[in-house]
Amino acid sequence: MKKLVVGQSGGPTSVINGTLAGVYYEAKKQGFDKVYGMLNGIEGFLEERFVDLDDYFLDNNNLELLKRTPSSFLGTCRFKLGSIEDHKDTYEKIFSILDKHGITSFIYIGGNDSMDTVQNLCDYAELNNKRQNFIGVPKTIDNDLPITDHCPGFGSACKYIATTMREIIQDNNCYGNTKPTIAIVEIMGRHAGWLTASSALAKDESCSGVDAIYLPEIPFDMDTFIEETRQLLKRKSSIVIAVSEGLKTEDGQFVCEANDNNLLIDSFGHKQLSGCADILSKKIKDELDIKTRPIILSTLQRAAAHLASKTDLDEAYNCGKLGAKLAYKGESGKMVYMERVSNHPYKIKYDMFDDIHKIANVEKMIPLEWIDVENNYVKEELIDYLRPLIQGEVKQIYKDGIPQHITLDKGTK
Amino acid sequence: MKKLVVGQSGGPTSVINGTLAGVYYEAKKQGFDKVYGMLNGIEGFLEERFVDLDDYFLDNNNLELLKRTPSSFLGTCRFKLGSIEDHKDTYEKIFSILDKHGITSFIYIGGNDSMDTVQNLCDYAELNNKRQNFIGVPKTIDNDLPITDHCPGFGSACKYIATTMREIIQDNNCYGNTKPTIAIVEIMGRHAGWLTASSALAKDESCSGVDAIYLPEIPFDMDTFIEETRQLLKRKSSIVIAVSEGLKTEDGQFVCEANDNNLLIDSFGHKQLSGCADILSKKIKDELDIKTRPIILSTLQRAAAHLASKTDLDEAYNCGKLGAKLAYKGESGKMVYMERVSNHPYKIKYDMFDDIHKIANVEKMIPLEWIDVENNYVKEELIDYLRPLIQGEVKQIYKDGIPQHITLDKGTK
Repeated sequence: MKKLVVGQSGGPTSVINGTLAGVYYEAKKQGFDKVYGMLNGIEGFLEERFVDLDDYFLDNNNLELLKRTPSSFLGTCRFKLGSIEDHKDTYEKIFSILDKHGITSFIYIGGNDSMDTVQNLCDYAELNNKRQNFIGVPKTIDNDLPITDHCPGFGSACKYIATTMREIIQDNNCYGNTKPTIAIVEIMGRHAGWLTASSALAKDESCSGVDAIYLPEIPFDMDTFIEETRQLLKRKSSIVIAVSEGLKTEDGQFVCEANDNNLLIDSFGHKQLSGCADILSKKIKDELDIKTRPIILSTLQRAAAHLASKTDLDEAYNCGKLGAKLAYKGESGKMVYMERVSNHPYKIKYDMFDDIHKIANVEKMIPLEWIDVENNYVKEELIDYLRPLIQGEVKQIYKDGIPQHITLDKGTK
Repeated sequence: MKKLVVGQSGGPTSVINGTLAGVYYEAKKQGFDKVYGMLNGIEGFLEERFVDLDDYFLDNNNLELLKRTPSSFLGTCRFKLGSIEDHKDTYEKIFSILDKHGITSFIYIGGNDSMDTVQNLCDYAELNNKRQNFIGVPKTIDNDLPITDHCPGFGSACKYIATTMREIIQDNNCYGNTKPTIAIVEIMGRHAGWLTASSALAKDESCSGVDAIYLPEIPFDMDTFIEETRQLLKRKSSIVIAVSEGLKTEDGQFVCEANDNNLLIDSFGHKQLSGCADILSKKIKDELDIKTRPIILSTLQRAAAHLASKTDLDEAYNCGKLGAKLAYKGESGKMVYMERVSNHPYKIKYDMFDDIHKIANVEKMIPLEWIDVENNYVKEELIDYLRPLIQGEVKQIYKDGIPQHITLDKGTK
């Protein structure tokens, strides 16, 4: 008997359920006798909260709905497992649960922190001669995982940002030259500016694009920002500026820390950022006396499944499938990743990466040579890298005017 | 020679350009020799900034792009014409410009304030034996115009809000029962709660819907709000609350006025509101110590043409067509409006309303009997009213993964 358990961890994306769909589909095809979902990742696993995915997805229509459902169908967690030495009890508990349920394979869909979990579980198994194997499948809208060319989830967030930016630019432009109007759009990305950079995709012959892009990779200086905005205002009256939530000054302080009330710390010790756009808008209003609107894309950018990129959803699904294949083959301590074989035409190769130590807890930033520092913009190379990821639309399943989803409560069970 | 000039005024919507497309199409069909667009509404008119719409829309593909382009293609303004007695010079100037260009008809697409303009121009023409005629075509996402069953622009905003709410609910639910999580979603609507109410449409068998809806029609009390949220938390851990930007306390003070920095006044003397969600989130955090995320839909709700309702776009287009027909017939001081002939099946009759005085400067609120005050929700009657307005999807014209628009600069001219 081969039994698989799959979980989702960390911040959700528009297509993380596409990966779950791929895992389930391929796991069944490969011959797993059972495919369990752990609820709320490793946290629910420790409480033995499992569902049998057959109860939901034997019906292929439900699997199609799953692909179109944003957020984590199984629920998520931000549970840090900690080192094996310091948390021996927890690891023993995990393996006793695996043994108790006869689970032979474990797939974790997540970002940096989740790969850390996969690595630790694999290490523990090796050290203790456990038979279970552990596979990681990447997801993150932030695109900050190393090794893989890009992450499932990122392309759909880019497509949302590019589309929304274009709509914001149109909206902001409605006063034409009669009244200077500025929009500061705050985009997710704690340290890496990939998502903020994707706002550059809004530009083409039908749209003038965003006027400036401020990335966390480049130290932010408030006086320079005000001066650059002042210069922009000399050239045009409708200005849309994309800023990362994670903008930092030269000394490493987050710009949004000026707004202390908005700062929270999550259980990984990450600072939860917000308020950057508010602070910059207020500053422009104070210094330049121009109507300035902060727009914060917030969770919409990671949840807008109605604007998912078909390329991204297909890749998320394929990564899930490969994860299930590797799990069935008995591979362990591996992460599925994507290599870009060519860009014109865009071609991706799926593979497994052996040394998961190199993935966990490393954040991939935008290469500095892809950033046009002088003009507060990104270079063509970066746009070339991003463009293929947003191609194609996912046909939504509408009912009564709204896209349909599937939820744990409302399954076919 | 019959010559028409058409303008757009006030806050833009996703489908106000659909109305412009209808005006242009029908004006040509009826036999107008020229169809001018005034740039930035009456403000640009006074500076004789006109474009010949033939330069853009003889090509039917461009007309289709126009229908899918959010914001005001011609640009907008918030210019209040003022009374005839006090601004005689301005009115004289307007009519001298009309005469100079041989313009015989004037169509203004806008909300309450724009209907005020149409009324004044019509009054002036009658008083001074001018031959020009003036027609108003309604638009507003706020749905606060009287007489018409609903306003073009409203349905698409509702569809955006319902879809986005469903995605936010999915996203917010990702921690399941492991961690209480609250999202406070701030929705536009200065005095009328129509848009905020549309969040109720998110609910169906696949989505539990929003947990509470706070409307500006009902006086807001902070202590009651905190207590109601505390009660909600006893029943479930993932909570999504829709609030109007225009929430007011019993004494008529805007809730967001507690946050003085965010308060601006526009040229109509309207207070520009923002910050309600921030204030409520902070309050919940302080009082209940629960992770609470403010999400402000901002201009996205009026600009998200990619999620336009087909019903709404068709109606916007038809209203524009009727406007052009009435203009050609020589009607004046009339507003196009919609009457709901039946709801099952949904059927709309387009007509003209004679007494524009009854429209200008009146705001239509949600009838109190449609609000479930006790449960902070809306009643079935309101949902029945809203549901037909979001039906149908508009096929977007995608290029390189992003919906295409048309702009004044980038026309085929």
